[in-house]
Amino acid sequence: MILTVTLNAALDITYRTPALVPHTTHRVDEVVERPGGKGLNVARVLAALGHETVVTGFAGGRTGDVLRELLGGCGPVGPRGAGTRSRADAAYARPVDALLPISGATRRTIAVVDAATGDTTQLNEPGPTVSAAEWRAFLSCYDRLVPGAEAVALCGSLPPGVHVGAYAELIRRARGAGVPVLLDTSGEPLRRGVAARPDLVKPNADELALLTGSREPLVAARDTRRRGARAVVASLGPDGVLAATPDGVWRAGPPAPVRGNPTGAGDSAVAGLLSGLVERLPWPARLSRAVALSTATVLAPVAGEFDAAVYEELLPRVTVTEYPPA
Amino acid sequence: MILTVTLNAALDITYRTPALVPHTTHRVDEVVERPGGKGLNVARVLAALGHETVVTGFAGGRTGDVLRELLGGCGPVGPRGAGTRSRADAAYARPVDALLPISGATRRTIAVVDAATGDTTQLNEPGPTVSAAEWRAFLSCYDRLVPGAEAVALCGSLPPGVHVGAYAELIRRARGAGVPVLLDTSGEPLRRGVAARPDLVKPNADELALLTGSREPLVAARDTRRRGARAVVASLGPDGVLAATPDGVWRAGPPAPVRGNPTGAGDSAVAGLLSGLVERLPWPARLSRAVALSTATVLAPVAGEFDAAVYEELLPRVTVTEYPPA
Repeated sequence: MILTVTLNAALDITYRTPALVPHTTHRVDEVVERPGGKGLNVARVLAALGHETVVTGFAGGRTGDVLRELLGGCGPVGPRGAGTRSRADAAYARPVDALLPISGATRRTIAVVDAATGDTTQLNEPGPTVSAAEWRAFLSCYDRLVPGAEAVALCGSLPPGVHVGAYAELIRRARGAGVPVLLDTSGEPLRRGVAARPDLVKPNADELALLTGSREPLVAARDTRRRGARAVVASLGPDGVLAATPDGVWRAGPPAPVRGNPTGAGDSAVAGLLSGLVERLPWPARLSRAVALSTATVLAPVAGEFDAAVYEELLPRVTVTEYPPA
Repeated sequence: MILTVTLNAALDITYRTPALVPHTTHRVDEVVERPGGKGLNVARVLAALGHETVVTGFAGGRTGDVLRELLGGCGPVGPRGAGTRSRADAAYARPVDALLPISGATRRTIAVVDAATGDTTQLNEPGPTVSAAEWRAFLSCYDRLVPGAEAVALCGSLPPGVHVGAYAELIRRARGAGVPVLLDTSGEPLRRGVAARPDLVKPNADELALLTGSREPLVAARDTRRRGARAVVASLGPDGVLAATPDGVWRAGPPAPVRGNPTGAGDSAVAGLLSGLVERLPWPARLSRAVALSTATVLAPVAGEFDAAVYEELLPRVTVTEYPPA
């Protein structure tokens, strides 16, 4: 079982309109709701790859109720407007819901997609405030789940009320239980998390630069390892990924540049890395999987989904290059 | 008791952000939720004026649950971010909830307010589809409520599934029960409604022009009376209102132009007209009340609220001019 943690889960709402024009009124043509937050996205992709997954974190209020209902189903649901459930969804296994109820309401995110161009405007609500008692309840739940996990992924932002060293604390507890742990966050929670020696971090270029002060990915990735991360896989958008690991340094990229919606591509990469980790694949195979999954996500018609056929087709064509030892 | 009908109720969500920039990501600073839809807004103002009000129409899904919870409270609720409950709200009587449950989910509207300028970008979801059985259940509920009402207000758009002559049907039923009925809608539902001889319609300048083909408010209002409306009060934005009635024609306007957020100003005018009707005020007093309420709504810090002190101060200063007989 792979455990993913989403402390600041979201109900992701996508609106399709002809084009967003500030300071005017828009009739929304189509509304799609799906469970959101990085850890839930990662779990959905892992489940699609056939991995047993458990999701934990927080959910509350009516928005939390909707999120949990959707999690019990499979894939996105369009309550009004055209159905958007893709065929691939039908085959999805479901992540097991181990979210903790909280008194605050789960945040919404609104993605307004211009129908003609696919350009997206994003509005993200702040998360609910998590109380000290709710955080303690989460820790006790986490400690019960971790020993049964092959790997743990800690994903996304921290909601208000959760201390900035929360991921560091969760990393120490996973390491104490001997379970490999991946961290995908940004800013100070990433800085503190790295210092707690996670097995893997997956920053993007901006997060890496903020952490290390260097915009040169190889320099920054090596610096991040020195700061405590056992391995670093930096996602570089259309250029693929750069991995600095105890076994070597690699760069992996798609066979050709692609155009599409990058929403969720990073989460698909995390799912690829985690699945490769628990299957004990060598690094080049893990990176190929991460790049093929994230590219198949960019190319999918529904944001955050991945096209299984495209993934299978891309996987053998990802280019992986090993760097000479430093 | 005054009965207001809101067939396409909404959960109104207001987001405050520094400024909306298309195709970028925004962190929302403040989230406020309130019951929405014209009839609910009218009822809230009527309740604040001390009138017993009952709201009916449809509510469904989790969004409908939130709407009904908020309706049971008073005024807007900011679940996250700074509290925005104004002092005036505390004194509000609550409209009685006689909304009918439906299987579809109540729509959301999102108002994105640029913090610096107050400029607002509006995103309106389509309403839930109302089934034939749900419409029949509504008619039976409406027929039970109408005989106990001093006046009925039919407000806003029709949700999918409700036939375009729905308001005409509701007007005929209210007239059959001897209860005065006000209609505030647009397009074909307004055209058909007017032909069913409502006691009062409150179009704005655009709706009046669409109905009659004339952009000259006096000509258009008189034409609307010929089409069936017993009285017409046209809202003309900052210029106030024009009333064509069996007792004469009047124009009423604020003592000076005001700047602010016009959201809900028309609904406050409807509440002023309805309260004046059931209190049997002469037309000039009704119009003064409508103009003072809508101006106090434009000036209120929270969209759709009105400032009671500003209303009291404005009321005696509204200018009302009678037109000579045609």
